[in-house]
Amino acid sequence: MTTRLLEIRAGVLSKNDRLAAALRERFQAAGLLVLNLVSSPGTGKTALLERTLAALVAAGARPAAIVGDLATDNDARRLARSGAPVRQIETDGICHLEAAMLAAQLDAAGWALDELDYLFIENVGNLVCPASYDLGEQLRVALLSATEGEDKPLKYPVIFNSADAAVITKHDLAGPCAFDHALAVSNLAAVRPGIPVFTTSARTGEGIATWLAWLAERRAELRQPGPGVQS
Amino acid sequence: MTTRLLEIRAGVLSKNDRLAAALRERFQAAGLLVLNLVSSPGTGKTALLERTLAALVAAGARPAAIVGDLATDNDARRLARSGAPVRQIETDGICHLEAAMLAAQLDAAGWALDELDYLFIENVGNLVCPASYDLGEQLRVALLSATEGEDKPLKYPVIFNSADAAVITKHDLAGPCAFDHALAVSNLAAVRPGIPVFTTSARTGEGIATWLAWLAERRAELRQPGPGVQS
Repeated sequence: MTTRLLEIRAGVLSKNDRLAAALRERFQAAGLLVLNLVSSPGTGKTALLERTLAALVAAGARPAAIVGDLATDNDARRLARSGAPVRQIETDGICHLEAAMLAAQLDAAGWALDELDYLFIENVGNLVCPASYDLGEQLRVALLSATEGEDKPLKYPVIFNSADAAVITKHDLAGPCAFDHALAVSNLAAVRPGIPVFTTSARTGEGIATWLAWLAERRAELRQPGPGVQS
Repeated sequence: MTTRLLEIRAGVLSKNDRLAAALRERFQAAGLLVLNLVSSPGTGKTALLERTLAALVAAGARPAAIVGDLATDNDARRLARSGAPVRQIETDGICHLEAAMLAAQLDAAGWALDELDYLFIENVGNLVCPASYDLGEQLRVALLSATEGEDKPLKYPVIFNSADAAVITKHDLAGPCAFDHALAVSNLAAVRPGIPVFTTSARTGEGIATWLAWLAERRAELRQPGPGVQS
């Protein structure tokens, strides 16, 4: 029975992968930078996004966000205050987002993708299951808060290994939590050598400018013609 | 395909339920109180258990622990310092513990269950998937740290609804985190009316005596003959 279950799961995954690949093509064609934010519950994905969306809107960029939760639309309501368009996916008990859920929300939203610059997807808070589901994002960003402990990359290696960048959040709480920043960075590097690591506090604003500069660079790269393309 | 997947999952779950029911009978027969601790990654399950095991050993009780993680045996090594017998389950990427994993560890450990008073099972850090897998425990305890935010019971209702007790951990960090304790308790009660809530700090020892007293009461109840049983 386990073998059958695994076979069917592989089937589901490859269906997800095909759909994610189609989404990725749409995003690339529209020049839209799409980021999939993954972390534990309570790491501060929504707080980082609040800061990020507000700063991007203030700078004249055009961000949007899609937020996944098992239940409630609290996060979408928080993020909508930035003025950016936001949609909530309630997964109704499912422990991760899938490409089909994202595609359905994009259809329902009716956004013109080429009139957006950034799309942030806030995944369900879970350090395990979202790792297996490609959403068609260009960048997967794994968050780790100063309150969770430096060992999390070692204990949840798959999700940190599959990430393109890491953000250490709630750094204003590093003191009270006796958080060892150098150890966290070295644990991240052990699981994913060379990963860029940002250190932020949504409360104080620490590190937000560096994070925004990196986002802008990644977005600018999208618009560059690839090697061999005539301009 | 979704329907087939769900049918096979239901089959897997009911196999798990049968195995869990058999484990529960063994635990009851041995007079062993078994607790399944569930929470996000980094909520402090291991820190609470360190305190709990050390206090129980010091008081002459006979606790044991089985710890689940995707990878590493760090937690088992931390807990073994208490002097209590401890085993680590490395799930190798699986996002929850299952009754079969627990049964296999109990066989491998060879513990005489009737010579133990308490068995603590530390589940994989995940607020979603462990909710669906009965391990044969008498009590499921959901932890929520002061650093995670008061809204987690509303956003992850299934796991808090299936819990017999809740522990608010890291309460020493409530000040720096601007944690609203009354709101967290009311959110827990909204999802699971009447749930007992303990408030602890493994760092300062706050609330540990109350938690230990509750454990001792639950353990004493196990030894009581049920209604209609002649003594």
